[in-house]
Amino acid sequence: MNLADTIKFDEKGLVPAIVQDFESKKVLMHAYMNREAVEKTISSGKMHYWSRSRKKLWLKGETSGHFQTVREVRIDCDNDTILFLVDQDTAACHKGYFTCFYRRLEGNDFVVVEQKAFDETKVYGKDSVPNK
Amino acid sequence: MNLADTIKFDEKGLVPAIVQDFESKKVLMHAYMNREAVEKTISSGKMHYWSRSRKKLWLKGETSGHFQTVREVRIDCDNDTILFLVDQDTAACHKGYFTCFYRRLEGNDFVVVEQKAFDETKVYGKDSVPNK
Repeated sequence: MNLADTIKFDEKGLVPAIVQDFESKKVLMHAYMNREAVEKTISSGKMHYWSRSRKKLWLKGETSGHFQTVREVRIDCDNDTILFLVDQDTAACHKGYFTCFYRRLEGNDFVVVEQKAFDETKVYGKDSVPNK
Repeated sequence: MNLADTIKFDEKGLVPAIVQDFESKKVLMHAYMNREAVEKTISSGKMHYWSRSRKKLWLKGETSGHFQTVREVRIDCDNDTILFLVDQDTAACHKGYFTCFYRRLEGNDFVVVEQKAFDETKVYGKDSVPNK
C-alpha cells in the first residue's frame, strides 16, 4: 500500500491535517497537505505542508527552527483527514504560543488563555507573516 | 462581538471544525460548519455541522443519540479553524469507534488500534451511511 494512495485528496489535491502534541495532547494547528507534503513528511519524519497563500511546499520550522517531529500518524474513517501526533520544538504558532488555539470563547469574546512560549518578533521580525 | 463575525468562512461559507474529547483529549473528528451550524452549536450547546454530501444542517447524534456537548470553544490564530472540546456520548464515529481516527500507520498499513464502543450495525443498520 502506498500511504498517499489511501488518502482522499479534495478537488484541489489537498487534505486537511490536524496536528496534536504527543505529550500534552494539545491540538496545535490545522493545515493542508498535498501529496508531496504527505510523502516528504513520512520520509523525513518532519511535518511539511502546502501553503495555500504562498502556493508552495513548506517545511514547518524552516524559518523559526520550530520543527515538528512525527510520532504517530492516524487517518479518519473517510480517509479524508490525517491526524499527526508530533513532538513540537518550542511552539507551533507564529504568534508565539505553543498552540495556534490560544484563545478560548468566554461569553461573547475570545480571550487569550495560553502563555507565550517565545518572542515572535525576535524570530519572525516585527511584521511577522503567517506561514500558511 | 458576534462569534460568527470573527470566524473567517471560506469561499463556500464553511469553516473546518476539530472536535476533541474534553476528558481524554482524543481528537474525535473533523467536520465543516456554516454560519448557521456555528450559531446553533453555541446556542444549544450541542455540536451541529454542515453536511457537504447531503447539503444540510446536521445535529450530531440526531440518528445515533450520540450527542456531543460543548465544554470549550477555541479559535486559531488565523480565525479560520475552530476547536471544540466536548463531552462525547458513547462514541463519535459511525463505524462504532470512540474516535474517527481509529487507525494508525504502522509500516505501510493503517491498522485499527482502538476498541469498538458500540455495534454500528444496530444503530445505523447494516448499510450504515456516513453522516458527512
